[in-house]
Amino acid sequence: MSAIPQDFVRKTAQVSEAITRPFPGSRKIHVTGSRPDIRVPMREITLAPTRMGEGVEHNPPVTVYDTSGPYSDPEVKINLLQGLPSVRGAWIEARGDTEVLSGPSSRYGQARAEDPELAHLRFAHIRAPRRARSGHNITQMHYARRGIVTPEMEFVAIRENCRLREMREDPRYAALLRQHPGQPLGANIPDLITPEFVRDEVAAGRAVIPANINHPELEPMIIGRNFRVKINTNIGNSSLTSSIEEEVEKLVWSCRWGGDTLMDLSTGKHIHETREWVLRNSPVPIGTVPIYQALEKVDGKAEALTWELFRDTLIEQAEQGVDYFTIHAGVLLRYVPLTANRLTGIVSRGGSIMAKWCLAHHQENFLYTHFREICEIMQAYDVAFSLGDGLRPGSLADANDAAQFAELETLGELTQVAWEHDVQVMIEGPGHVPLHKVKENVDKELLDCFEAPFYTLGPLVTDIAPAYDHITSGIGAANIGWYGTAMLCYVTPKEHLGLPNKADVRDGIITYRIAAHAADLAKGFPGAQVRDNALSKARFEFRWEDQFNLSLDPERAREFHDETLPKEAHKVAHFCSMCGPHFCSMKITQDVREYAARQGVSAEEGLDQGMREKAREFVKGGARVYREV
Amino acid sequence: MSAIPQDFVRKTAQVSEAITRPFPGSRKIHVTGSRPDIRVPMREITLAPTRMGEGVEHNPPVTVYDTSGPYSDPEVKINLLQGLPSVRGAWIEARGDTEVLSGPSSRYGQARAEDPELAHLRFAHIRAPRRARSGHNITQMHYARRGIVTPEMEFVAIRENCRLREMREDPRYAALLRQHPGQPLGANIPDLITPEFVRDEVAAGRAVIPANINHPELEPMIIGRNFRVKINTNIGNSSLTSSIEEEVEKLVWSCRWGGDTLMDLSTGKHIHETREWVLRNSPVPIGTVPIYQALEKVDGKAEALTWELFRDTLIEQAEQGVDYFTIHAGVLLRYVPLTANRLTGIVSRGGSIMAKWCLAHHQENFLYTHFREICEIMQAYDVAFSLGDGLRPGSLADANDAAQFAELETLGELTQVAWEHDVQVMIEGPGHVPLHKVKENVDKELLDCFEAPFYTLGPLVTDIAPAYDHITSGIGAANIGWYGTAMLCYVTPKEHLGLPNKADVRDGIITYRIAAHAADLAKGFPGAQVRDNALSKARFEFRWEDQFNLSLDPERAREFHDETLPKEAHKVAHFCSMCGPHFCSMKITQDVREYAARQGVSAEEGLDQGMREKAREFVKGGARVYREV
Repeated sequence: MSAIPQDFVRKTAQVSEAITRPFPGSRKIHVTGSRPDIRVPMREITLAPTRMGEGVEHNPPVTVYDTSGPYSDPEVKINLLQGLPSVRGAWIEARGDTEVLSGPSSRYGQARAEDPELAHLRFAHIRAPRRARSGHNITQMHYARRGIVTPEMEFVAIRENCRLREMREDPRYAALLRQHPGQPLGANIPDLITPEFVRDEVAAGRAVIPANINHPELEPMIIGRNFRVKINTNIGNSSLTSSIEEEVEKLVWSCRWGGDTLMDLSTGKHIHETREWVLRNSPVPIGTVPIYQALEKVDGKAEALTWELFRDTLIEQAEQGVDYFTIHAGVLLRYVPLTANRLTGIVSRGGSIMAKWCLAHHQENFLYTHFREICEIMQAYDVAFSLGDGLRPGSLADANDAAQFAELETLGELTQVAWEHDVQVMIEGPGHVPLHKVKENVDKELLDCFEAPFYTLGPLVTDIAPAYDHITSGIGAANIGWYGTAMLCYVTPKEHLGLPNKADVRDGIITYRIAAHAADLAKGFPGAQVRDNALSKARFEFRWEDQFNLSLDPERAREFHDETLPKEAHKVAHFCSMCGPHFCSMKITQDVREYAARQGVSAEEGLDQGMREKAREFVKGGARVYREV
Repeated sequence: MSAIPQDFVRKTAQVSEAITRPFPGSRKIHVTGSRPDIRVPMREITLAPTRMGEGVEHNPPVTVYDTSGPYSDPEVKINLLQGLPSVRGAWIEARGDTEVLSGPSSRYGQARAEDPELAHLRFAHIRAPRRARSGHNITQMHYARRGIVTPEMEFVAIRENCRLREMREDPRYAALLRQHPGQPLGANIPDLITPEFVRDEVAAGRAVIPANINHPELEPMIIGRNFRVKINTNIGNSSLTSSIEEEVEKLVWSCRWGGDTLMDLSTGKHIHETREWVLRNSPVPIGTVPIYQALEKVDGKAEALTWELFRDTLIEQAEQGVDYFTIHAGVLLRYVPLTANRLTGIVSRGGSIMAKWCLAHHQENFLYTHFREICEIMQAYDVAFSLGDGLRPGSLADANDAAQFAELETLGELTQVAWEHDVQVMIEGPGHVPLHKVKENVDKELLDCFEAPFYTLGPLVTDIAPAYDHITSGIGAANIGWYGTAMLCYVTPKEHLGLPNKADVRDGIITYRIAAHAADLAKGFPGAQVRDNALSKARFEFRWEDQFNLSLDPERAREFHDETLPKEAHKVAHFCSMCGPHFCSMKITQDVREYAARQGVSAEEGLDQGMREKAREFVKGGARVYREV
């Protein structure tokens, strides 16, 4: 982060083609809602027809949820210096309950804005912040509780459905829509998501739409047990590595692979400026842990933290547009000794900072004692709470212990305080938990926190696989998602070892997309199986290109295939490298099916009419398992 | 596989150092049983002491299950041309119920032995095969049912425990032995595995010790629900790729990373010769699918297969020493039409071959009609059945359907026939199954197949992630292991796309070791948490080297760490790259704990005695969250 003005401008005005190029066979579409400015982005994957002998059967396109934002839209000219186009600006303004301030109201925000040393780093197009007008509550929860369906709510309803209604009305999709009934374990997922259902879930606190009024670039999304399971990714420079441009690149990269939200966990210098760049270019909700920045402001001395300093930091970040704050208000003084006999003590950074502060002052956590004031600040910008689990276990041994569950109960108490202010709330969860103890976490959270959306880190189901913790945690994540967790915080292969690079981020995201999708299927989310069915059909019919294009990572699927069978011709071959051309079970099955069809045999009838004679013909005709190439 | 005599000898006489070098901090140990020739291999990981201020606390070594065989034993001189030393030869001979034949009794085995063209490929030290003497039953199940504890049974009992008794008697292990009580879901795992328990489980058919009398190089292991969950790996050349030397290298590689058994699924030429090299150099049980080779013998024409040809193949392979055979005897003629309306038909190679045969002849599967004769052959060498699931689902859509479950019921019927002959049995399972349908598979298998060990491929919990199917299936595998599956067949990232290379094999194995270990923890296998506890303790105390050495893949853990913090000094630093030196939650927690200890505060007492005053001192003393470096 040395002086980089010219380089920075050159490099970041556009993001590289490698991270924005459209996926093969895919096009960006927008589904329009009840008004023309509700345009919900999705990705449509076009498929090749099925060829069986002389016949051709067309395969309808498959629509998938799309987190990539305008970066994958060829009609949008990306210029990071300008930031993304506004999606929600007009909606916010039309509500008439907010006002534009003359400038930042935080002291820190003002100081940074005036510091000439930072000119070369600063995002040039800083808008004046917006805040609720006095006496107004402008949160999505508040609207929902008053019975109002906001454009944001309609947007997420359309987004969740991924054109399910249209598919149901189109007979070409009948086979693709076949799906196992789910086992929702208490979730209550409707047959189709309506804007009114979204409103009711937000009103009840069972779902959150993180959408700060100062983040109009956001494409709204929803986090709740009765919706698609979401995944969060983390970026952030530390004092050791990274620059602003790398962080923005990581953001775009995260959106490309399927991150639904993103937390900026930077702890280095210039985190205020980095955040502005990230927010202005982010189509996904951005979360932060404000105590990290507050600690930077007191040079890392936890005991020097004060409520006033923290308050200023909250306002600073809220006015930039951060959509949710992790606040560790449940780390109470009396809980700290409960961690003394743990194998791995307190492993949450925020949790340890607050524990240290509590011990140093022998006072109750100021985040807890000032919680109502925090609610008032967050209410004024519609920032959602992500109530932090500062006492989460850092090892299997410490899972589900007294410290963890005591804090969870306090988070439930705080949830009700936040809801009194109509401030939206998520609850953070662990961490490291053996497989058979995972469900207890969800059940307790739903009970203690009144079904506020649960947002968990993994959990890792064993401690013994550093370098593979995306997998150890992906196992826990799929299960906890099924059990009722609304959002899964991803873990990369570098967890516990180092900072993730781009390859690690991609591995982490795809792993968590797998986990979230496995959970959606298990809960029986309507339409969730369409993509699986389409891909399996393509696989069975040797439509290799379609198989790649329908996969979560089309680029790697193709690359792996080509390692063994690089020739273009092989992508239309009726075999694959596992068995070679002479010996393919898929091919055999197709022969079996065609043969059965020729005999006029259906599954219902069985094989017994006149089959014996036909069988003789088949053998006489030289039927072979393989065919020459 | 062109002519390679000289190269082959040079290259394979020794395997490369890269795949046999000892893991850092580890040494090979042997635990001796009731007689000196029962020497059970394990790996012992030595740990550094914990340093807290002036004090030093020694950390006792951790013993882990070791599948790597003599390859990781510096005292064994490896020579692939000679094969591995005999482990079981004397035990088998001492039982006096087998005889050494003058040569192979299969026609094919005889023809290969006499073919001068194959001289350059042939393993030079071919032993004459051994077979049960007439009127004798020599299976482990037979001995068990007669109340006999074989050396094999004692060996696996010692192996399963991994020195648990010794740890329990040593007070240094008290903290490491803390473990969450499991949720065994009907498993019945004793507090310590005794040889008598092994015998009783084998007698009941709940566990299998695959141990052909012609595979004396084998280090015995056990597969059963009440033991550690095992993993199987696959190798095999196809007609497109690979040579003998590559297959042997893959075998050693598989053992290194933790494969408990290995299936040789070769379909190319020279599979007879390849198998001999693999068996003579394998410390783990080897499985095959004999129908693959039988099909090669009839040039891929499924309808040309005959019982006589198959029978000869079984004898050929049994006399080489194959420990378990996958036999698709449950694919009945009447089940084939049940697959006609499936999304992905029949995807098992063996299943499709037999389906094609049944249709072509309109006769019942000859593996089913000749099943008793198959049992008699397998009995004579103690080959275990792995009853194949030829109708397993190839997609989520087809999971748990009529075809799959009809076959499973037939496998149950065949299990009882095999048990009449005291032949050991495992049951193969899927495949592709959504998360919430996984348990049904185990429950049905345990019921229909009388608790014979279940051995499943994954299952994959979604179809949409080719190139990541080790992960989609690892999620299913961890769950199905917990629910009661005894062995998990690994899946590599290349599944559905191509043949795995060494990197893929390693990724697949580590993923499955994670899944198996997660299942062991969930079932509450005694001592399973020791390694997690030791690693977490090392992590918490910044003993980086110990953290690496205790991990499933020490080499990659170290490499990932070093990408961010390459300097040697950082491995003893009290921070890591995630937060940098100024801001580390682990460090903070240690400070908190030390502080609490200074105040004489225990978890029981709470923090309220005189803490306020002490807190003031702490602040006055300049307590800081970070320290200078």
